[in-house]
Amino acid sequence: MTAEIKIQKNVLSKNDEIAAQLRRTFAERRIFVVNILSSPGSGKTTLLEKTAQALGSKLRLAAIEGDLQTSRDADRIAGHGVKAVQINTGRGCHLDANMVTNVLPQFDLDAIDVLFIENVGNLVCPMTYDLGEDRAVLLVSVTEGDDKPAKYPTAILKADLLLLNKMDLQPFTNFSTQRFGMDVWKLKPNLNMLEISCTKNIGLEAWFKWVQSESQKKRQS
Amino acid sequence: MTAEIKIQKNVLSKNDEIAAQLRRTFAERRIFVVNILSSPGSGKTTLLEKTAQALGSKLRLAAIEGDLQTSRDADRIAGHGVKAVQINTGRGCHLDANMVTNVLPQFDLDAIDVLFIENVGNLVCPMTYDLGEDRAVLLVSVTEGDDKPAKYPTAILKADLLLLNKMDLQPFTNFSTQRFGMDVWKLKPNLNMLEISCTKNIGLEAWFKWVQSESQKKRQS
Repeated sequence: MTAEIKIQKNVLSKNDEIAAQLRRTFAERRIFVVNILSSPGSGKTTLLEKTAQALGSKLRLAAIEGDLQTSRDADRIAGHGVKAVQINTGRGCHLDANMVTNVLPQFDLDAIDVLFIENVGNLVCPMTYDLGEDRAVLLVSVTEGDDKPAKYPTAILKADLLLLNKMDLQPFTNFSTQRFGMDVWKLKPNLNMLEISCTKNIGLEAWFKWVQSESQKKRQS
Repeated sequence: MTAEIKIQKNVLSKNDEIAAQLRRTFAERRIFVVNILSSPGSGKTTLLEKTAQALGSKLRLAAIEGDLQTSRDADRIAGHGVKAVQINTGRGCHLDANMVTNVLPQFDLDAIDVLFIENVGNLVCPMTYDLGEDRAVLLVSVTEGDDKPAKYPTAILKADLLLLNKMDLQPFTNFSTQRFGMDVWKLKPNLNMLEISCTKNIGLEAWFKWVQSESQKKRQS
């Protein structure tokens, strides 16, 4: 084993330990935690804005926003009355459990039902870092092309729910829902997929129901 | 310095050595080498297909295609009569100079004017790995949103040319070329930007001219 691989294994094993501690913390407070994954610009922040508008009065929401630079995403979410903390990773290509642990003191954990963790826009690196989440949600936009599941299988394998976004733009692309769905099915036959458009409010009701239902399960656990 | 950072520095320093050797190899043969960078699904492969159609009879083109999985991109490029070799990185989030070196024996280096290296779709990791290229070309599609330069500054700083793709879809989005351009300008005032649509053949003539002109410079160097 090379020194590089050994260090990488140590990093992941240390991350898993910290993520397990996070998971215990979230379980004690019955906080439902969602790790949101996608390419850059697939619509993660817009999804959270729409979710804040729809569910902000029903559930106590909070968000952690991961980006290399800027606090734009946290500012956008905070604009909807949701407590949001930005993590800037600099040159880092993913969030890790330690970064999440470090910002938790900025939240009142007794006043949160659902914590969204918006990861760095990247279909590779975030897939191997557990953040103590209950569910990983993968967002793919039709403008990225229907070959993404085959090319980024680790993202499909990590996902507990797949949101296919920007469906309003599909008529202007050569995206085939059938080709996309077939490749997803080969990798993970039971993966639930919702077709949505965040900007055009298409299909979002099903997503809101999923968040409410999963959050309720967690509160009753 | 932690062991992790030390290893990372060693990896990058070793990569730079191999990239320098690649650069000498390419210089000896007067091969113009372009490292193509973008998010997943910004249109890198479609750009290369259009380039093969337009310039394949004027220049001897070749391509290295980086992806986690599948040989779909190399197959697409080869379909246009261009020699293309696929590198599958598995879980690796970028190409490195060693991977490029390893596939070079599959090419006849005396019969290449331009070598395109299509990196793994990722706006973070590929930015720190020199592949011995002459120029780095960054492709961003308008559907990714106009906040990408501010959020991924290392990608802008790495780029020698910026191609703003999928301009045909701009009317259906809230993408502002002015906001995008301002953020680019703040980071790199002299970065040349071309507005294109690969699928709708908009603005591609300027890109073809750039490839021809840069390739000619290299042949005469």
